Amino acid sequence: MNDQTRNTSRSGGRAARRAARATALPEHLRPIRPGMEGGTYKPLTQAQVERIHETALQALETIGLADAPPSGIDYLVGAGCTLGDDGRIRFPRALVEDTIAKANRSVTLFSRDGQTDLELSGARVHYGTAGAAVSMVDAHGREYRHSTVQDLHDASRICQQLDNIHFVQRPMVCRDISDNLEMDLNTIYACCSGTYKHVGTSFTEPGYVAPAVEMLHMIAGGEDKWRERPFMSNTNCFVVPPMKFATESCEVMEECIKAGMPILLLSAGMAGATAPSTIAGAIAQATAECLAGLVYVNAVSPGAPAIFGTWPFGLDLRTGAMSVGSGEQALLSAGCAQMHKFYNLPGGAAAGASDAKLPDMQAGWEQMCSNVMTGLAGLNMVYEAAGMHASLLGFCFESLILGDDLIGQAQRCVRGIEVTDETLALDQIAEVCLGGPGHYLGTDATLGRMQADYVYPTLGDRTSPKEWAELDKPDLIEKATARKEEILSVPSPARFDPLLDAELRSRFNIHLPA
Amino acid sequence: MNDQTRNTSRSGGRAARRAARATALPEHLRPIRPGMEGGTYKPLTQAQVERIHETALQALETIGLADAPPSGIDYLVGAGCTLGDDGRIRFPRALVEDTIAKANRSVTLFSRDGQTDLELSGARVHYGTAGAAVSMVDAHGREYRHSTVQDLHDASRICQQLDNIHFVQRPMVCRDISDNLEMDLNTIYACCSGTYKHVGTSFTEPGYVAPAVEMLHMIAGGEDKWRERPFMSNTNCFVVPPMKFATESCEVMEECIKAGMPILLLSAGMAGATAPSTIAGAIAQATAECLAGLVYVNAVSPGAPAIFGTWPFGLDLRTGAMSVGSGEQALLSAGCAQMHKFYNLPGGAAAGASDAKLPDMQAGWEQMCSNVMTGLAGLNMVYEAAGMHASLLGFCFESLILGDDLIGQAQRCVRGIEVTDETLALDQIAEVCLGGPGHYLGTDATLGRMQADYVYPTLGDRTSPKEWAELDKPDLIEKATARKEEILSVPSPARFDPLLDAELRSRFNIHLPA
Repeated sequence: MNDQTRNTSRSGGRAARRAARATALPEHLRPIRPGMEGGTYKPLTQAQVERIHETALQALETIGLADAPPSGIDYLVGAGCTLGDDGRIRFPRALVEDTIAKANRSVTLFSRDGQTDLELSGARVHYGTAGAAVSMVDAHGREYRHSTVQDLHDASRICQQLDNIHFVQRPMVCRDISDNLEMDLNTIYACCSGTYKHVGTSFTEPGYVAPAVEMLHMIAGGEDKWRERPFMSNTNCFVVPPMKFATESCEVMEECIKAGMPILLLSAGMAGATAPSTIAGAIAQATAECLAGLVYVNAVSPGAPAIFGTWPFGLDLRTGAMSVGSGEQALLSAGCAQMHKFYNLPGGAAAGASDAKLPDMQAGWEQMCSNVMTGLAGLNMVYEAAGMHASLLGFCFESLILGDDLIGQAQRCVRGIEVTDETLALDQIAEVCLGGPGHYLGTDATLGRMQADYVYPTLGDRTSPKEWAELDKPDLIEKATARKEEILSVPSPARFDPLLDAELRSRFNIHLPA
Repeated sequence: MNDQTRNTSRSGGRAARRAARATALPEHLRPIRPGMEGGTYKPLTQAQVERIHETALQALETIGLADAPPSGIDYLVGAGCTLGDDGRIRFPRALVEDTIAKANRSVTLFSRDGQTDLELSGARVHYGTAGAAVSMVDAHGREYRHSTVQDLHDASRICQQLDNIHFVQRPMVCRDISDNLEMDLNTIYACCSGTYKHVGTSFTEPGYVAPAVEMLHMIAGGEDKWRERPFMSNTNCFVVPPMKFATESCEVMEECIKAGMPILLLSAGMAGATAPSTIAGAIAQATAECLAGLVYVNAVSPGAPAIFGTWPFGLDLRTGAMSVGSGEQALLSAGCAQMHKFYNLPGGAAAGASDAKLPDMQAGWEQMCSNVMTGLAGLNMVYEAAGMHASLLGFCFESLILGDDLIGQAQRCVRGIEVTDETLALDQIAEVCLGGPGHYLGTDATLGRMQADYVYPTLGDRTSPKEWAELDKPDLIEKATARKEEILSVPSPARFDPLLDAELRSRFNIHLPA
C-alpha cells in the first residue's frame, strides 16, 4: 500500500531509495524482533515494589490459600508449608524466598520448527494471542456468532503469517464441539496444524492430559522429541481468586509438569470483585497467588519451567462488568511486569484486549495503550495482545491482522532510542549545515537508517489525502479482510504431513475436515 | 451510554452504586485532572540525556544558527554570542548554561475565566490541540474539504466542553480568509469566542502583532488586565531546521515578548529531511535549536515565559512523506520530554496525531501510542493531542471528541499506581478471605474507589455483545457526531459580551457571523 511509487513534490532520491529497498534486510538488521528488551517504563518505585512484595509474603503467611487438592497438600506440606485447621495452606516467608531464589529464571518456549523459539528472561518482550472468547466478530456484518474449531484453526494460520504475533495461545473456544475431551484435543490439533509458533492451551480435567500428551508425542515424533522441545505450554488457572486453589486445575498442572510442559501460572483476579479494587491491592494479591503457584510447581519438580502469570483484570465498577481496555488495566499489567523483573522470573500478563465490540477507533486506542505500556515495562509475555474484543468475549480476524501493525509499532517503542556518536550525528549536522545541502534527504546516513531503524505499517495508511482519494479511499478493515482471505486461500504451511495426519485422525476424533 | 441500568447477572449491589453515583464528586477527588505528574517512563538513561545535551552545546558552539534578523543579531551578540564571517551566530557554552540556569522554570498559561489555568513546571502533563491543518475530515462522507474560520470556532467551542482538552492551540487554518492579517485576527476572534481555555496562535508577519495585541487588550478589558493574565500564547516557528533562524518569525517573537505573550519556541525538524534521520540526532538538533531560542528570548527579556518546543517529526523514509503516527514519533517526543526535565524547563512536543485519513482503528492506536508515552514521560504540553489526521493535514471533530476519552485514559495512566497501606489492602484481603464473603463486590472500599480511582469513558463502549445488540449496535463515530451536534446546538458559553463584540466588529473585519 505504502510502497507504491509516488509522484508528489515531497518525494526525492526515489531511485536511490528504490534500489536500497530492493535488497532484503538480513534478519539481524530487522528494526524489530521478538524478545527485545523493555524496562524503560517503571510504574512503581523500588520502595513500592518492595511493599507489594512484603504484602504478598504476609498474605501467604497469614491468609494462605484454601482448596488445594490432596496431592497438592502433600507436595506443599512436604516443601514446608503448614495446613491449618481451616484447611488453608500457609507459606512461611523463608520457603517463598527460597523458592524465588531457586526457580527457573529463563524459560524457552519452543516452536515446532525451531524458527520462532521464545527466550523468556530479563525484560525480553513477546506478544501473542490468548483468551477463551466464545464469539467471533464479523466486522463487516457487525455481528457476534459462536466461535468454532475452524475459526481457531484459521486464527492459528493467520498468526503463523504475522511477524509480530510471537506465540499462539488459544484465543477462543471451539463451541461446535460439545464433548470437553474432544474440544481439548481438537484445540491442540487446530492450533498446531495452523502454526509452527509456540502454542498454549488449557485442559478441562486432569484425565485429559494423558491423551493430549499422546497427541503431542505423535506430532513431535516421539516422547523424547517432545520433551526435548515442548512446543506447547499449559495455561493453568490454578487459583480461584481471592486466595483459593482451583482444585482440579492444580491436578491438571501436576500432570502437565510431569509431561514436561511449561506451566503458565495464571491468576486472573478481577479488581473490585475477586481482587481488591485498588491497583496496588490487585497486584499484591495476584503476586501472592502466583508465588503460591511457584512454590507448588517447584515442590512437584524443582526448576520446572513456569511463567509467573499475574493477570489481574479491571472491572467497570459502575456495572460490575469486566473491562480490559482501560488505563487501569494497562497499569495493572505494567505493574505486574515490574514485579516479575523484581523477582527476575519469566512472567506474563494480559494486555492489548479491548472493550469495543468492533475494530474501531476505541479498539485501536485501547489495544495500543496496554500493549505499549506493558512492552515498555518489559513484560516477557504479553497475552491477549491482538484480536480480542468485547472484554474478552469476542475474537476478530481483522483486528488480529491489524494488531500485527499495532504491535509492530509498540515493539518499535520498546526498542527505544539508541544514543551513540553515530546516532547523535553531530558530524552530519555540521556537514549538512556548513556548506552542505541544508537537508538530510538522500544522505548515506539517512538511506542506511531507512530500513534498519524505521518500522513501516503493512496495512496502516500513510498516504496523503490526495493519494488516498486517488486510491479510492481504501478502508482499513477491508484491507485486513483482503489479507485474511489471502492467507486463508492457501493451505496451512504448518499442516501435518499426510501420514501423521492420518494417524492422528485414526487415533482421535478430529473435527476439522482433512 | 455506559451509565444505563443493566439487568445482567454480572451486576450486583446496583442500588448502592446508583446512590454513590448520585453524589457528584468534588473537584479534588476527580480521578484525573490537568497537570498530573508524569515521569515514570524514561526512554533515555541519564548518561544518554547528558550526551544529547553535550551534542547540542557543541552544535551551538561550532555550527551555530544562520539567518538571525538584525535585531536578533544585536540581542544575541549583546548577550555574548559571536557572529561569524559566515553570518552564523555561535553560542558559547557558558552563555547557554547561564541562560538555562536563569530561565523561567514555571510558566502559567492563563485561561480567560481563571477556571483552567495551566501551571507548566516539573513533569506536570497537559493535553491540547495544535497544528495548522488545511482540511476538515468529514468522517461519514469520507471527504476532505478546506477548513474555514467557522470550523476553527466550532473546534474551539467543542474543546471548551471536553474536560481532557486543556488548551486550544489553533488546530487548523482559516482557508476562507485570503488576507493574512485578517486571517490572523479572525483566528484569535474565533478561538477566544469559542473557549475560555488558554489559546495559542501564530502570526504571519511582525506587523500583525500590534493589531492582534490591540484585539487582545479589548477582549481582556485593557492592557493591564491582559498583561496580568495573558490568555494567549504565540506559537513561534523561530527556526527553519537545520540550524537556521526563521528571520521574520524571530521578529514576530520579539514583538510578542514585548507584548507580554508567552512564547512557544517551536522547532519542527523532520527526521531524515531537515533533521538527522536518527531519533537521538533529531532530538539533539531540536534541543540545540530550542536552546538558541531560549538564549534569544532571555536576551530580549530576561525570564520571559517560554516553552521549550522541541517538536521533531518523523518521516516515512521510503517516500519522504511526513509521518506522525509512528512509534518513532512517540519516541522522538517522549525523548524530548526527558530533555525538558533535565533542564527543568517548561516544555512541549507534538503527540497524538495520526497518519490515518479517518477516525478508524489506526487513528486510535496511533493517537494513543504517543499520547500515553509522552504523558508517562512527563511532557508539560502535549500538542496536537486530539483530532489530527493525515499527517497533520486534516482535522476531524469526531476524532477530537473521541480524543477526550482517549486522553482521559492516557491521563489515568499518567496518574499511575498509588501504593499505601490502604491500597495494598492486606486487611481487606484477610477480611474477605477468612470467613468473609469471598469477594470484594459492594464493599465500602470498592464503592469508595469507584469514582475517585476509575476513569470511565464518555463515548467508549463497554457493553456486553448482548447489551450492545439490544442498544441497536451503536456506532462510535455516530455517537461522536451526536455529541458534536449537541455541543454546537447551543450558543458558545465563552462568546463575547454583546457590547465588546460590537466594538470588536467595528474595529476589525470579523468574518464569523454575529
